[in-house]
Amino acid sequence: MAGTVAFVVTGVLAVAHKGIDLFSATVMGIITAVGGGTMRDMILDVPIFWSIDQNYIWVSIIASIAAFYSSSAFSQKKVNKMMLILDAAGISLFGIEAVDKVWGLGFGIPLAPVLLGVLTAIGGGLIRDVLADRQTLLMSRTLYAIPVLLGCVFFVMILTYLPDYNLAGALIGVLIIFGIRLTAIQKNLTVPDWIYLKI
Amino acid sequence: MAGTVAFVVTGVLAVAHKGIDLFSATVMGIITAVGGGTMRDMILDVPIFWSIDQNYIWVSIIASIAAFYSSSAFSQKKVNKMMLILDAAGISLFGIEAVDKVWGLGFGIPLAPVLLGVLTAIGGGLIRDVLADRQTLLMSRTLYAIPVLLGCVFFVMILTYLPDYNLAGALIGVLIIFGIRLTAIQKNLTVPDWIYLKI
Amino acid sequence: MAGTVAFVVTGVLAVAHKGIDLFSATVMGIITAVGGGTMRDMILDVPIFWSIDQNYIWVSIIASIAAFYSSSAFSQKKVNKMMLILDAAGISLFGIEAVDKVWGLGFGIPLAPVLLGVLTAIGGGLIRDVLADRQTLLMSRTLYAIPVLLGCVFFVMILTYLPDYNLAGALIGVLIIFGIRLTAIQKNLTVPDWIYLKI
Repeated sequence: MAGTVAFVVTGVLAVAHKGIDLFSATVMGIITAVGGGTMRDMILDVPIFWSIDQNYIWVSIIASIAAFYSSSAFSQKKVNKMMLILDAAGISLFGIEAVDKVWGLGFGIPLAPVLLGVLTAIGGGLIRDVLADRQTLLMSRTLYAIPVLLGCVFFVMILTYLPDYNLAGALIGVLIIFGIRLTAIQKNLTVPDWIYLKI
Repeated sequence: MAGTVAFVVTGVLAVAHKGIDLFSATVMGIITAVGGGTMRDMILDVPIFWSIDQNYIWVSIIASIAAFYSSSAFSQKKVNKMMLILDAAGISLFGIEAVDKVWGLGFGIPLAPVLLGVLTAIGGGLIRDVLADRQTLLMSRTLYAIPVLLGCVFFVMILTYLPDYNLAGALIGVLIIFGIRLTAIQKNLTVPDWIYLKI
Repeated sequence: MAGTVAFVVTGVLAVAHKGIDLFSATVMGIITAVGGGTMRDMILDVPIFWSIDQNYIWVSIIASIAAFYSSSAFSQKKVNKMMLILDAAGISLFGIEAVDKVWGLGFGIPLAPVLLGVLTAIGGGLIRDVLADRQTLLMSRTLYAIPVLLGCVFFVMILTYLPDYNLAGALIGVLIIFGIRLTAIQKNLTVPDWIYLKI
């Protein structure tokens, strides 16, 4: 739920400087928070998670309204950084939780858990950016999606080769994503040159 | 069906000034008309409505071709206004009809009927705008989605607290959306300042 | 599979000049190759094809990495043309194969097989272009989607009126798409004026 709130707030803030009304801000907040998981569940063909537990939507709505009316506070550098850190916690938890869900369903093992883990973590943000006509993070050099990929791959390898250590594996997977992302935020790390291309 | 035709025509007109061929115009017309309902049915995990009644697609194709070849007529101010009014009828009927469908399935009550009502009404237009690289209505100050939200919330409240009056509730819900939207078109109303933010 | 590889490589090349990292390039490659078929299977409500045969994803990943590190070769005019030709083969095979799949399921005959044939062939490229903020092919005058439409309509007509000749029909359908597209590449054909509109 902390991840949901963080996703919502970063979602609202990401579009606020373009000028937005309360309704659209709430839509953007909801999409950022639940968009990735919705696509995951549609691909898995299981009931959409927020149709079973509507608290995800309630929390998204309340956090959107709160973020909308207190957005001046968030523009301060310190609060903004705190949100980036919460967002890092969000992608870590969402990604690893999704791997666990997809693995438990035996869906397209071993590739699909990784793909859908990454999709769940970054998918909502991608839809928001497309709707707001912002550059999507896929086209930026920010070190954002790669940590999610590494954490999900790690967790899938644990589930494959050391299934008895799945809980420890999930925890370390979360820490891998959160740790790399946190370092990237603190030190303004970008994607290194040897895996970056511009022709 | 009148709503479908209006959606198609506004869909084609929305992209015509950018230069478009008959095929793409038809694709845009179909997407505007059935895109929202398609996403709704995919989330609900029920058969897509146009796979059962293909007339929605036939009507979309015919209306797209007609709009394409008669688009010079639509650029006239009067006809354009008539289309906006038909479009207002479209979002009213599509939104309330979707609430009714989602409620009938018992899906994520009470939040999901509202969410999917709004999605059905505006989703097709959002996809069209993204594909045509137009500013989506979420980023504009036009009073467009908020009336849909109000009408859907009203209808859900009737279904919850006064289920015996569901028919009257649906009718009033349609009138709420249509009435506010019509007033907004006539008086060029935009989203009021107290729910508008630009940081 | 040749079609998959071609789709991946054109997908990676399409975004490489904007500057992209290995991860994002791979995501773009995968989306270009499997995005259309994924949307088709979600609409059909059948298991996503790559969850059953993960080789589509493995091939996409390997081809993406190969394209990423050898992209300088692809910028040469000759190799680029070869890729366009492979891509033409890709849309031909993907489109007709999708018509066959949808027809076999008896889904929304006769319209849905055509719609989903076109969606399968061009859908992945549309998502890629939206995520990379490129102009989608729907807004360009390139003769790309119309050949797919013609081939799919032809194949559906054979399946309807001459079902005994379905194999020959599929083959001719592929040749129609591939032939028109190849001619368009060789002679730089664009959409003719009588089906093009700009108001």
